[in-house]
Amino acid sequence: MATVRAMIQNGRVAVAWPDGRRAEFPAIWLRDNCACATCRHPGNGQRLLDTLDIPDDIAPVDLELADSDLHVIWSDMHESRYAGTWLRDHALTPEARNERRSRRTLWGAEIANDLPRGDWAEIRRSPEAERDYLARYGEFGFGLIDNVPAKNGMVVEVGNRFGHVRVTNYGAYFDVRSVPDPTNLAYTAVALGVHTDNPYRDPEPGVQLLHCLESDAPGGESILVDGFRAAEDLRHGDRAAFELLAHRHLSFRFSDRDADLSARTPVIQLDDDGVVAAIHFNNRSAAPLDAPLEEVEPWYRAYRRFARLLRRPENELRLRLAPGQLLMLQNDRALHGREAFDPNLGRRHLQGCYVDKDGIASRLAVLSRDEAAA
Amino acid sequence: MATVRAMIQNGRVAVAWPDGRRAEFPAIWLRDNCACATCRHPGNGQRLLDTLDIPDDIAPVDLELADSDLHVIWSDMHESRYAGTWLRDHALTPEARNERRSRRTLWGAEIANDLPRGDWAEIRRSPEAERDYLARYGEFGFGLIDNVPAKNGMVVEVGNRFGHVRVTNYGAYFDVRSVPDPTNLAYTAVALGVHTDNPYRDPEPGVQLLHCLESDAPGGESILVDGFRAAEDLRHGDRAAFELLAHRHLSFRFSDRDADLSARTPVIQLDDDGVVAAIHFNNRSAAPLDAPLEEVEPWYRAYRRFARLLRRPENELRLRLAPGQLLMLQNDRALHGREAFDPNLGRRHLQGCYVDKDGIASRLAVLSRDEAAA
Repeated sequence: MATVRAMIQNGRVAVAWPDGRRAEFPAIWLRDNCACATCRHPGNGQRLLDTLDIPDDIAPVDLELADSDLHVIWSDMHESRYAGTWLRDHALTPEARNERRSRRTLWGAEIANDLPRGDWAEIRRSPEAERDYLARYGEFGFGLIDNVPAKNGMVVEVGNRFGHVRVTNYGAYFDVRSVPDPTNLAYTAVALGVHTDNPYRDPEPGVQLLHCLESDAPGGESILVDGFRAAEDLRHGDRAAFELLAHRHLSFRFSDRDADLSARTPVIQLDDDGVVAAIHFNNRSAAPLDAPLEEVEPWYRAYRRFARLLRRPENELRLRLAPGQLLMLQNDRALHGREAFDPNLGRRHLQGCYVDKDGIASRLAVLSRDEAAA
Repeated sequence: MATVRAMIQNGRVAVAWPDGRRAEFPAIWLRDNCACATCRHPGNGQRLLDTLDIPDDIAPVDLELADSDLHVIWSDMHESRYAGTWLRDHALTPEARNERRSRRTLWGAEIANDLPRGDWAEIRRSPEAERDYLARYGEFGFGLIDNVPAKNGMVVEVGNRFGHVRVTNYGAYFDVRSVPDPTNLAYTAVALGVHTDNPYRDPEPGVQLLHCLESDAPGGESILVDGFRAAEDLRHGDRAAFELLAHRHLSFRFSDRDADLSARTPVIQLDDDGVVAAIHFNNRSAAPLDAPLEEVEPWYRAYRRFARLLRRPENELRLRLAPGQLLMLQNDRALHGREAFDPNLGRRHLQGCYVDKDGIASRLAVLSRDEAAA
């Protein structure tokens, strides 16, 4: 069997694997990531090594390979061991960096034929079913759960199974139905264009659950749009517009008797590699744009172009929620809206709550870990 | 009395105030921010006007001024009124944009002489005292509250007065004291360098409360550092280092039996005008840097330079919390740490919880509004 090879090159450690893959590891990076029991806490994995204590001129002085593990002796006399698979998984090549990105599939109206979907009883019974559901939710940014008992407050129970429900000035959950004197347009019967919820919060809600309790009013169909796909459409169609929406922050605001919330965020949020990380779009709560004068007209052209992309029928998933169905949305990706409904001819009652993203991602990670160990 | 003047110039509305201030408002911006009852919901202030419904060639066709209010007749036949003070407050000039920034004062060790501070009984009794405390907290990014009854779970009561406590895998609150087999280094007696809490969460906690219940162990002094000031020091001393930490994201991770949390964020987070908006610094939970190879060594030089600035004695506020004192920290600005303590010679017991930023900012805004109306 061909083996891993390693050599010192210009102060870096160069590693080559049998399949031809190669990677270089800078000395400071490798030393800082030493996993020995004095550098990392064996129980919780936290770094005990103070990165500032590494000498400026740290350098590998000797390498040894045993069973694909790399053993490094450092100029500060420390010795480190790195598993070959760990090195491969953490390599800094474009190829390895790309492989570490979480899986994401952009979608349009055609996703109606194969919805990311789970069954509540099944999810509760089977860790595999729960993991599969959460993985699909993560890939597409939304999921539908069937057979969630249509009872009051049930949405909070679902939220707390996957993560932690966030309490806001709306409480732990809120009722979406037509009421007199609404403080929010959501609580009327009018149509709502697709939007992300509450961009006026800091932090913005990461995940929204919407549980259907009653639905016999004519109209009120739900509309979902993949904001990441619309953003990519904009990037390809008008790069300058895309970059303006990615750079300039827009303020959002909500104010009623008891609350006055505001936050600033770009409409299209990118990560450090230019990948779309989040969408913040809510025309109802957008505050006056606070930008240098010369940016205003170009920004509006960009914003209106993006808004038109979000409204293209081929980007829209339309579905009519039935009592007992629960929609789970990555709030900053899967924009949602609804058609108007007639509250005089029937009822439409949803209950919603917000859950932080990290708890849900953690649950998926733990379920996947258990799976791998099984 | 000199009056406000307005004229149409190149499709924009130019306004001049008696004190010589001038501002231009682009037609699309002004039309989009019409505040009439058909464009904005009179009750909740949400925008009813669909920004896409504004014609591409929207233009002001006539202006009129009455009592400093600007009346605009638009090419789409719509009529709008804008209060002169509203226009002034929302002008897009550099001067007006700068005035809208929230007040912020950078600090170092000298702040020990004039701590932002409040008294719990006073805060509960007097809305002015509460507003003043929250305003000082907002300006400096931390505050100390005296006379908070040293009883179990009290920290949650304080958190829920100002905002909404966030429940995480640590529960609604957590105990910071030395325990056997800790899952986190915070739960030992070792010194902790200054850090922001839980950058491995998405969203990261915005505000942390730390309530002292017991404190007679030798050592255990608290250390606070203004991360915004250290970032400005870096910007002035080494602009390239500053920009690297502001651009490249670092991953953070925490993993124990029940949770596996990870998030990516820059160490120094800027807003769209280049102003420092947040610091994310936690050497214990920093995961291996995932960056293009050629950035790694420069990034480490920048990171270590920033870490040294955070450790300069003139940047450190040191204080010894007494039972009944509660420290409230803007987690992404006021870094905190502690000296080691001796758990064999006494006790040190803090209880902590996380609160979302928006609820606290909302409370300050509502208290300030009530004040203005009084």
